[in-house]
Amino acid sequence: MTERYLEDFAVGQTFGSGRAVVDRQQITRFAAEFDPQSLHLDETAAQQTIFQGLAASGWHTGALTMRLLVDSDLKPADGIVGAGLDELRWPHPVRPGDELRLECEVLDVRPSKSRPTQGLIKVRTTTLNQHHEPVQIQIASLPVLRRPSV
Amino acid sequence: MTERYLEDFAVGQTFGSGRAVVDRQQITRFAAEFDPQSLHLDETAAQQTIFQGLAASGWHTGALTMRLLVDSDLKPADGIVGAGLDELRWPHPVRPGDELRLECEVLDVRPSKSRPTQGLIKVRTTTLNQHHEPVQIQIASLPVLRRPSV
Repeated sequence: MTERYLEDFAVGQTFGSGRAVVDRQQITRFAAEFDPQSLHLDETAAQQTIFQGLAASGWHTGALTMRLLVDSDLKPADGIVGAGLDELRWPHPVRPGDELRLECEVLDVRPSKSRPTQGLIKVRTTTLNQHHEPVQIQIASLPVLRRPSV
Repeated sequence: MTERYLEDFAVGQTFGSGRAVVDRQQITRFAAEFDPQSLHLDETAAQQTIFQGLAASGWHTGALTMRLLVDSDLKPADGIVGAGLDELRWPHPVRPGDELRLECEVLDVRPSKSRPTQGLIKVRTTTLNQHHEPVQIQIASLPVLRRPSV
């Protein structure tokens, strides 16, 4: 898979990804380090929460999404380095054993006004579980290099 | 520190946090699992990027921020479980050896129209390094329980 320059992106393009399975041990290990709350750590305590069972930290879902994105066909030249997200939603919880995959859609493509070698693409990335439910939706603006003139 | 109910929050309140130091080994370990791009993995290759040196994945900064938030004085009753973020920015990179801390400000407090036992607070959390530079700014809407009537 070759890298894509700004000129290779167009509004409406879609990109898929590989799949990643997340197990109970990964969920509790991530939570112990970064989000030590009972609904991410302990099945019995998690039963008493609105999630009614163990669920991954949203930041874990975000990190898993990033991994799938890096390995996906999106492949902007110069890598995936965003200045931030315009929106980040977690509509459904991620459960132990869930298999995640991505659907990416290009929402906007524009050359930079101030930097002639660069542009910006806006991409919505939806992370889906094996039941086709969205577990994360993010909208990111990514700087992308323009194709060097020969 | 007791937990806070909706009635304990007010617009303009600020909350601090403890501090967390992030070292090179943590940055490369997180990146190897979740964001395997050279600017997060390899000092020499990272010198050639716009970051001009090794920088943490934004998702690592987000996860570290979550950890500081869980341990902070914010302490909403029922835990910190957001449905998502309205905005997430990484204005400065996180470098090996950086010491991070949070400044949280309550932007909005409102009871839920549909759920009489619940409300929603909007909180801006700024993650700062030891040079007082913002490395992450997030705005989150968090559901918070109302104080149970006696």
